[in-house]
Amino acid sequence: MLTRSALPRYGLLVLFVFLLLNTSSAQNQSAPATPAYEEVAKQVVNASLKDGRAYEMLQALTSLGPRLSGSPQAAAAVELTRQIMEQNGFAHVRLQPVMVPHWVRGPVEEAAIINSATLGSVPLTVCALGGSIATPPGGVVAEIVEVKSFQQLQMLGKKAAGKIIFFNRPMDPGLLDTFASYGGAVEQRGDGAVEAAKVGGVAALVRSMTTQLDDVPHTGSMHYDDKVAKLPAAAISTLDANLLSQLLQQEAKVTVRLRLTCETWPDAPSANVLGELVGSEKPEEIIVIGGHLDSWDKGTGAHDDGAGCVQAIEAVRLLSVCGLKPKRTIRAVMFMNEENGLRGGEAYAREVAEQKTRHIAALESDRGGFAPCGFGVMADSLTTRKILSWHGVFAFFGADRILPGFGGVDILPLSRQGIPVIGLVPEAQRYFDYHHSDNDTIDKVNDRELELGAAAMGIMAYLISEEL
Amino acid sequence: MLTRSALPRYGLLVLFVFLLLNTSSAQNQSAPATPAYEEVAKQVVNASLKDGRAYEMLQALTSLGPRLSGSPQAAAAVELTRQIMEQNGFAHVRLQPVMVPHWVRGPVEEAAIINSATLGSVPLTVCALGGSIATPPGGVVAEIVEVKSFQQLQMLGKKAAGKIIFFNRPMDPGLLDTFASYGGAVEQRGDGAVEAAKVGGVAALVRSMTTQLDDVPHTGSMHYDDKVAKLPAAAISTLDANLLSQLLQQEAKVTVRLRLTCETWPDAPSANVLGELVGSEKPEEIIVIGGHLDSWDKGTGAHDDGAGCVQAIEAVRLLSVCGLKPKRTIRAVMFMNEENGLRGGEAYAREVAEQKTRHIAALESDRGGFAPCGFGVMADSLTTRKILSWHGVFAFFGADRILPGFGGVDILPLSRQGIPVIGLVPEAQRYFDYHHSDNDTIDKVNDRELELGAAAMGIMAYLISEEL
Repeated sequence: MLTRSALPRYGLLVLFVFLLLNTSSAQNQSAPATPAYEEVAKQVVNASLKDGRAYEMLQALTSLGPRLSGSPQAAAAVELTRQIMEQNGFAHVRLQPVMVPHWVRGPVEEAAIINSATLGSVPLTVCALGGSIATPPGGVVAEIVEVKSFQQLQMLGKKAAGKIIFFNRPMDPGLLDTFASYGGAVEQRGDGAVEAAKVGGVAALVRSMTTQLDDVPHTGSMHYDDKVAKLPAAAISTLDANLLSQLLQQEAKVTVRLRLTCETWPDAPSANVLGELVGSEKPEEIIVIGGHLDSWDKGTGAHDDGAGCVQAIEAVRLLSVCGLKPKRTIRAVMFMNEENGLRGGEAYAREVAEQKTRHIAALESDRGGFAPCGFGVMADSLTTRKILSWHGVFAFFGADRILPGFGGVDILPLSRQGIPVIGLVPEAQRYFDYHHSDNDTIDKVNDRELELGAAAMGIMAYLISEEL
Repeated sequence: MLTRSALPRYGLLVLFVFLLLNTSSAQNQSAPATPAYEEVAKQVVNASLKDGRAYEMLQALTSLGPRLSGSPQAAAAVELTRQIMEQNGFAHVRLQPVMVPHWVRGPVEEAAIINSATLGSVPLTVCALGGSIATPPGGVVAEIVEVKSFQQLQMLGKKAAGKIIFFNRPMDPGLLDTFASYGGAVEQRGDGAVEAAKVGGVAALVRSMTTQLDDVPHTGSMHYDDKVAKLPAAAISTLDANLLSQLLQQEAKVTVRLRLTCETWPDAPSANVLGELVGSEKPEEIIVIGGHLDSWDKGTGAHDDGAGCVQAIEAVRLLSVCGLKPKRTIRAVMFMNEENGLRGGEAYAREVAEQKTRHIAALESDRGGFAPCGFGVMADSLTTRKILSWHGVFAFFGADRILPGFGGVDILPLSRQGIPVIGLVPEAQRYFDYHHSDNDTIDKVNDRELELGAAAMGIMAYLISEEL
C-alpha cells in the first residue's frame, strides 16, 4: 500500500500507477459489472444442473429419427419444436416457411473389392455423400486410383480416366483443434466429385472425415459443377480406406464395384421455428439464439445439431425460470437445412433485411453438446473487445475462452449484414468420432455437459441483452 | 512507452511502475521462461496426438478384465505394466512388493422387494459394497426404512432396529464440481453399515453414487467398526432407489430380501510397479508420476484408474520420444490397492522415508481420462505459487486451471512427509456416470482426450524437473 504521505510529492505519478494497476486488475477479472453478472451466471448454471430440461428435449427430438431436410422426420421435428416452445411459454411462436432441397439416400448403397488376387471379394463399408447422384443400376465397376490431394490427381492426368478416384488424405490427428483438422481434409468430400470428373474419373470414393479408425462411414455435403460430368460419390470407413490403400500397394490393379441408389426430388416445403422471450425495455431489439433442426440421415443428429437446438431453447427457458427479464428480446431460431442448402439461415437473414428489424447479435451452438469452453466471436473490433471482456463471468464453470472466431453457418448470412455473430465452443476432441455418421446418437451426449452449454448460451444472450 | 527524458526526474518511481507492470504482466502470461517451455509443450502435445500410445496401452490393460487387489487379473496387470515399461525403455524397472487385502464379491448378489401390496415381487439391482460381509445363506429378509442422513437415522432410534437401513440421499446435481457432489454423499457408503449397526439395523442398502438415473449399481469402499455389529452392505441402482422410495410413500411396510456371498480372504502378495527416466543432471532427485493399477471388480476400471496409469507411463514416454532430457529423475509409479486399502501408496511412502530418497514432488492422475483442464496443487504456499505461475505453458490446450487443490489418494502419504503433490484435473462432468460400475469400460474413453491428459502430465513433470 502506498501511504498517504507519498501523495503530495508524487501525486500525479501515484495516480498514474493506480490507474495502470486498476486497468490491469480489471482486465484480469473482467468487466466492472462482473460480480453481479457472475451471481446471475451461477444461478443459471445451478438451475441448469438441477432442473435442466435440455436432455429430455433431446430425447424427444432424437426419438423422431434423423431429420434430413425434406424428410417426414424433419417435418415432425418442426412440429415438435413448435410444441416445445409453446409448452415452455415462449411468445410469438411461429414457423417461417422455407423450401428445402430434398435428397434421399435410397434403399441400397454398397461397395466391394472384386477379385483381389490375395483377398478375393471384400465388401467395403460406404455411404453416399449427401447430394450424390445414383450409379447405374448395376453399379460402377472400375479400377481404383488413390490420391492424397487434388494436385496429385491432376498430375495423374490420363491415368485417372475411367477410374474410381479414391481420395485418402486423413484428417491430421496432430492438430489440437479438430475443426482445423476437418477443415484441412474436407475439400476432398466437397469437391472430390468435381475434381474426379475433370480428369475423366467415373466415381469418387472419399475417406471418412474422422480421426477414429472404425468401420463407420461419415456422410456430408458435396457439390457438382455444371461444366463437368456428375459422378456418384461415397464416403468409405477409415478402416476400409486403410485396407484399400494397403491392397493398392500390394496389387497392381484393384477393382471396385460401387452401387448407390440416391435420388434428388423436387424441393420440399419446410420451416424455421421461432419463439421469443420478449424484452422488458427494448422489445424491438433482437438477439438471435439458435441451432439447426435438420441433420444428416445417419444416426439421429444428437450432437449435430440436436444438441444445439435444445441448448438454444433451454437457454431461453433457463433465463425465464431464473426470473431474469432481459431488456431486449431473445429470439430462439431453429434453422432448417444447414447441412445441405442453408435455406433456413438465408430465409431468416432475408426477412431481417426486408423488415429492417434491429438485430443486436446472433448466437449459435453447432459444435456438439460437450462441456462448454467458451465462444468464438465474429464482429467489429470494438464489439469483439467488449464481448471478450466478459470472460470473467464464465470463468467459474470453465467456459471463459472467449476469442475471435467463427460464429456459425446458419448465422453467417446475418454476419454479412454486419450483425455480430457468436458461436459456442465446447470441448470437441470427440466431435468427429460421431459427426455425420451412425455414431451420432444420444448415448454420446452427457446430460450435464449439454446443460452447461445451454447455461453458457443463456448467460451470453443475457449479457448481450444488458451490456452490448 | 515512457520516454527517456522522464527518467532523471521520476527515476525511482518509474522503476517502481516498471516493476509493478512487469510483475503483473508475468502473472498474466506466466513465468518469464514461458515461451521456451510453451514450445516444448507444443511438441509434447503434438507427439501425443499424432503418435500417442496411451489408448493402445489402455486397451491392453483393460483387456485383462477388472483388477481388484488380490485378484489374478491384478497380478496380470502388474506383469503387463512391467513389460510395457521395459518395452518402452524405462530404466530401473522393478516391482515393489506389498501385501494387499483380498476381498471377493462371490457368485451371488441379489435383492428383491417381496410381497408389495401393489407390485408383488420386484427384483432390485444391487451390488455388494467392497469389503462387505456376506448375508446368511438365505439372505437377510427385513422391512426397509429410508433415511437421507445419519442424523435422521439416529432420530429414528428404536424404530430402525431389525430393519434394512436404506440410505437414499442423492449426490447433489446442482453442484458444478462432481467430486464435491460425490463428497457430499459418499459418507453413506463408507459409514452406512456402521451407523446402521448402531441403531440395531440388519443391513445397509445405499443409493449408488452417481447423478445418472439408470439401473447400474456402483460399488466402492465401506468400513466396519469393531465396537458394533458387522452388517452386510450393498449399493442399489438409482432407478431402483427411486422405485423403493416411491413405494415406501405408498405402502406402510415394504419388505426386502438381500443376499450377498462376499468373502474376505487372507491378504495376498502384490506389488507397485516402478520405472524411471533417469535425470541428466540430478538423477538422485526424484519426481513421482503415477496412477493406481488396481480397480474395482465392476467394468474394467478404464477411467478409474486405467487411464491414469497409462497417462503416467505415456507422459514419461512422450518426454523421451521428444528428446527431452529432464535434469531430475522422473519415476513412474503404478500404485497397487488404492481402492480398498492404500497399501501401495503407504509402502512407497515408507520406502521414501526409510531410504531418505530426495523427492521433489509427486504427480497423479486419478480423476478419469477426459480432456485435461488443469491441476490441483497441494504444497506450501511458495511452491504452490510457483507451480500456479506456469499456467501460461498449458493455456494453448486448455489445461491451465492450475489451482490449490487435491493431489491424489496414492500420493497423500508422500504429502504427509512434506512432499508437494499435484493431481491432474480433467473435465469430469461424466466421471460419476461410470465410476465403480459396469459402465467403466474403454468405450467411454476418447483416445485424444486421454492423450492430452498424458501430455499435460508429461509437461508438468518436466517443468517440475527443470524449474521447481
